[in-house]
Amino acid sequence: MQVGLQVGALVAKPFLLYTYGTPNGRKVSVFLEELKAIYGSKVDYDWEKIDITNNVQKEPWFIEMNPNGRIPVLVDRARDNFTIFESSAILLYLQQHYDPEQKLGFDPNKRPNDYSEMLQWIFFQHGGVGPMQGQANHFRSAAPEDIPYAKQRYLNEVKRLYGVLDIRLMGRNYLAGPGRGVYSAADINCVTWIRSSGFAGIESIDQLTNLKAWRDRILAREPVKAGLDMPPAQ
Amino acid sequence: MQVGLQVGALVAKPFLLYTYGTPNGRKVSVFLEELKAIYGSKVDYDWEKIDITNNVQKEPWFIEMNPNGRIPVLVDRARDNFTIFESSAILLYLQQHYDPEQKLGFDPNKRPNDYSEMLQWIFFQHGGVGPMQGQANHFRSAAPEDIPYAKQRYLNEVKRLYGVLDIRLMGRNYLAGPGRGVYSAADINCVTWIRSSGFAGIESIDQLTNLKAWRDRILAREPVKAGLDMPPAQ
Repeated sequence: MQVGLQVGALVAKPFLLYTYGTPNGRKVSVFLEELKAIYGSKVDYDWEKIDITNNVQKEPWFIEMNPNGRIPVLVDRARDNFTIFESSAILLYLQQHYDPEQKLGFDPNKRPNDYSEMLQWIFFQHGGVGPMQGQANHFRSAAPEDIPYAKQRYLNEVKRLYGVLDIRLMGRNYLAGPGRGVYSAADINCVTWIRSSGFAGIESIDQLTNLKAWRDRILAREPVKAGLDMPPAQ
Repeated sequence: MQVGLQVGALVAKPFLLYTYGTPNGRKVSVFLEELKAIYGSKVDYDWEKIDITNNVQKEPWFIEMNPNGRIPVLVDRARDNFTIFESSAILLYLQQHYDPEQKLGFDPNKRPNDYSEMLQWIFFQHGGVGPMQGQANHFRSAAPEDIPYAKQRYLNEVKRLYGVLDIRLMGRNYLAGPGRGVYSAADINCVTWIRSSGFAGIESIDQLTNLKAWRDRILAREPVKAGLDMPPAQ
């Protein structure tokens, strides 16, 4: 028994997440916390904070895992250390392999239209909200010159994309699924970006009442709060 | 017989593609042409050219199909007019429903790691190559001001992303799959952008020998040529 307990204590958690406190990093820790709340320790994870302010994600050992040199990266120890990069691909991987009850997504074979709808909104975030908000952040606070045209361009685009989400959420609780929608990877994938809108220069989303209600609905969830605290402040 | 022939002539093709001659539009027509080459007329498509230079994609009838107001959009008449937006989501939809022999992708259940790898490179294009090359295009030829910093920023980023692809393709023929890789949606999803690198200010990719060989390998395919001709010049 004693040995068993010791061995148990030494067994690594199933996942290792390389992450940082950004919207893309946190969408994965939120998803993992949601899985943990449903399925328990078999989806628990270790994490390693990658200091992107010092370009650790561009070091050779990291590039070997993700040739693009960006966080997050997930290593699945339970499946022979299979390694996944691109935040949205990580969510889809986790949903496929570790959410057998389809609590955070839709079975692609049994509910193909809901599944496609989820994918459409995931790609909307991945190709629109994420990259454009990233550019807005850059020209607002990182660029070495003040370039009003670029600042305005990306702020406008982020506002437009938020408006698309607000219209989508009219009469809905969640982005994908029938009726008022069903909480899924599509929501988790996007909400960490909406939560960080301040960095892009969006002072408030109060006027986008559907988007605001959606954001607040999701941010009130305990697993979401836990995932947003990752990696923990030192 | 006469009646039968007439009815046959009136039966609509299974798909209606709303498109324009852009990398995102053409990745879908290329994919459809590849499907046609394998499966024949049951995956044939009608198309409608959406004049994005006159913002037709922002008209209410179009917004009803894609709230984001962008091409491409695919309507699947064979599945109760189910409508899909986001180019990468369209490819995954088509692969799931209309490629039963998995000639342009991987079965997510039987080959989950290959499938995930394909997704990772699809997201790499969708969140990286596409948006960043789009910004490079904008500051090079559409912006009303000459802004050297922004021009250089996006040109550098496109070059960096192309470099990631070139390294990935070292010793490989295709982006995803075992060994030297297997031609899949991941390649089609990306090659229409690489083909249009000139618009972003990339004079040549000759020095990226793996990327160039990959591009030329794919562009030599007859279905790819047919898909790139869509929509046809007037």
